[in-house]
Amino acid sequence: MDAKIRLYVKNQLCDAQIISLERNQANYLFAVMRQNVGNQILIFNNSDGEWLAEIVGGNKRIVTLKCLNKIRPSLAPPDIWLFFSPIKKSRTDFIVEKATELGVAEIFPTYCEFTNSERINQNRLQSHAVEAAEQCGGTYVPKVHNICKLTDTLENWPDHRNIFFCNEDELKPTIDFSSLPNGPWAIFVGPEGGFSKREKNYFLQNPKTFSISLGPRILRADTAAVSALTLWQSNFGDWVTKDI
Amino acid sequence: MDAKIRLYVKNQLCDAQIISLERNQANYLFAVMRQNVGNQILIFNNSDGEWLAEIVGGNKRIVTLKCLNKIRPSLAPPDIWLFFSPIKKSRTDFIVEKATELGVAEIFPTYCEFTNSERINQNRLQSHAVEAAEQCGGTYVPKVHNICKLTDTLENWPDHRNIFFCNEDELKPTIDFSSLPNGPWAIFVGPEGGFSKREKNYFLQNPKTFSISLGPRILRADTAAVSALTLWQSNFGDWVTKDI
Repeated sequence: MDAKIRLYVKNQLCDAQIISLERNQANYLFAVMRQNVGNQILIFNNSDGEWLAEIVGGNKRIVTLKCLNKIRPSLAPPDIWLFFSPIKKSRTDFIVEKATELGVAEIFPTYCEFTNSERINQNRLQSHAVEAAEQCGGTYVPKVHNICKLTDTLENWPDHRNIFFCNEDELKPTIDFSSLPNGPWAIFVGPEGGFSKREKNYFLQNPKTFSISLGPRILRADTAAVSALTLWQSNFGDWVTKDI
Repeated sequence: MDAKIRLYVKNQLCDAQIISLERNQANYLFAVMRQNVGNQILIFNNSDGEWLAEIVGGNKRIVTLKCLNKIRPSLAPPDIWLFFSPIKKSRTDFIVEKATELGVAEIFPTYCEFTNSERINQNRLQSHAVEAAEQCGGTYVPKVHNICKLTDTLENWPDHRNIFFCNEDELKPTIDFSSLPNGPWAIFVGPEGGFSKREKNYFLQNPKTFSISLGPRILRADTAAVSALTLWQSNFGDWVTKDI
C-alpha cells in the first residue's frame, strides 16, 4: 500500500464518504499519473485532515473516490498573515509556494507605492498554494486574496492584530522575540524598491507595529518573506520548542 | 553624486588606486548601463570594503577606474558554511543567490545518495553569487566549491566545526539555540528525496552533529536552505541582537 499521490479536495471527508473530483484532477490522476480504479491516494481538505481513499470509478473527465480511513488530523496554521508586494512572476509564485510550506493562514498581495507589477492572477497563485500544500505534506491551503492597497489596509487595520514590519531602515539587529506580544500577527514585506517614506510612517504610527531587521544585507523581497516567516514560526508559530 | 552601480572586483582597493575591469564588466558598464568616462560607480572586493570610484577611461572592451574614497568597511560573513544537494537548475541558482544574501562564507554543492542532478556549472553558480552580492549591498562573495560527495565530506570532517543537520525525521520542534555551542558551523540540507538512512546514520554518529527540525511540514530543499540560514544567522550570526 504505497499511496504517494496527495490531492487537496473541497469536499467534506468522513468514513466511507464518496466524493467526485473535478476534471483537472481526474485528468491528472488518469492521464498524468496513470492511476486506475482500485488504486489508493491520499486526500485532504482544510478541516477534516488527511484520508486514504480508493479510486472506485472514473476516467480522464471525472473520478469517484471513497474515503477509507483517516491518516492524520488537520493541522491548521497559526494565525499569521503574509502581506507582500507582487514582484516579477516567478518570484511572486515563489513567495506563495514558500509561504504555504512554511505555514501561513492567509496571503495578501499588496499594492505599494513602489510596486512594479500592478496585476496578479489570483487563481494562478491560489493553484500554486494548493500544489505547495499537496507537496509539503500540509493539510491546509492558505487563502490567496486579490490584490489590496497598502494604505487602505493600514487605514482599516484590526485593533487586535500585531504587525511584523520588515524594515530595511531598522538599525537594531534582530529583535528579542521574547519581548513581543502573543496573539495574531501579520508580516509585511515591501516591494523591490522598499516601502516609501509615507508608507513607513503609516507603519510606525500604528501602535501594533514592531519594526524588525533582517540582518545587515538588503534582502530581495522573496528572501525577506521566507526569512520573516521562519523567524515568526520559530518564535511564535508551530515550530516552537515543546517538551515531548 | 548618485552612484548606484555596484561591482565586485578582484583587485586590491586603496586611495587613488587605478584598476582595470575585465571585458564582461566593461561591456556591462558601457553597453548595458550606458556609462561614460567621468561617471562614478561603487566597487568592492572581499577584503578592502566598498569604494566610490570614477571611470577614468575605457570602452566596451576595457575600463579603467580610479578609487576615490572608501564608503564602507568590509563585512565578512560569520564562519558558516552551507552544504546542499543540487536540485533542478533554477532552484540551485536560487539557493546560491539566497545564501549570498543571507551571509554565508562558503557554499558546497554536495552529491548525496538521492541527488538527481550529478553535474553543476561551478562558474555559473559563482557568477550568481557575485550578482547577489552586488545587488544586496554585501561586501563579500562566498566561494562556491565544486561538487563534493557527502560521504567523503563527512569522513574527513574537521574536528572543530559543528554540524547543523536539517533532519526531516527530527520529532522535536525547533531547538533551543541557547543550548548549542559557539564556534564555526556548517548547515546541511538534503536533496528533494531527503538523506538516505545510511547518510542519516553518518550524521548522527558524528558528535559535532545537532539535529534540527524545520517545522511540521516537509520543506523543499531550497526553502530549507533559506530557513536554516535564517535560524542560524538570527541566533549565532551577524543578525544577532547587540546593544547599540
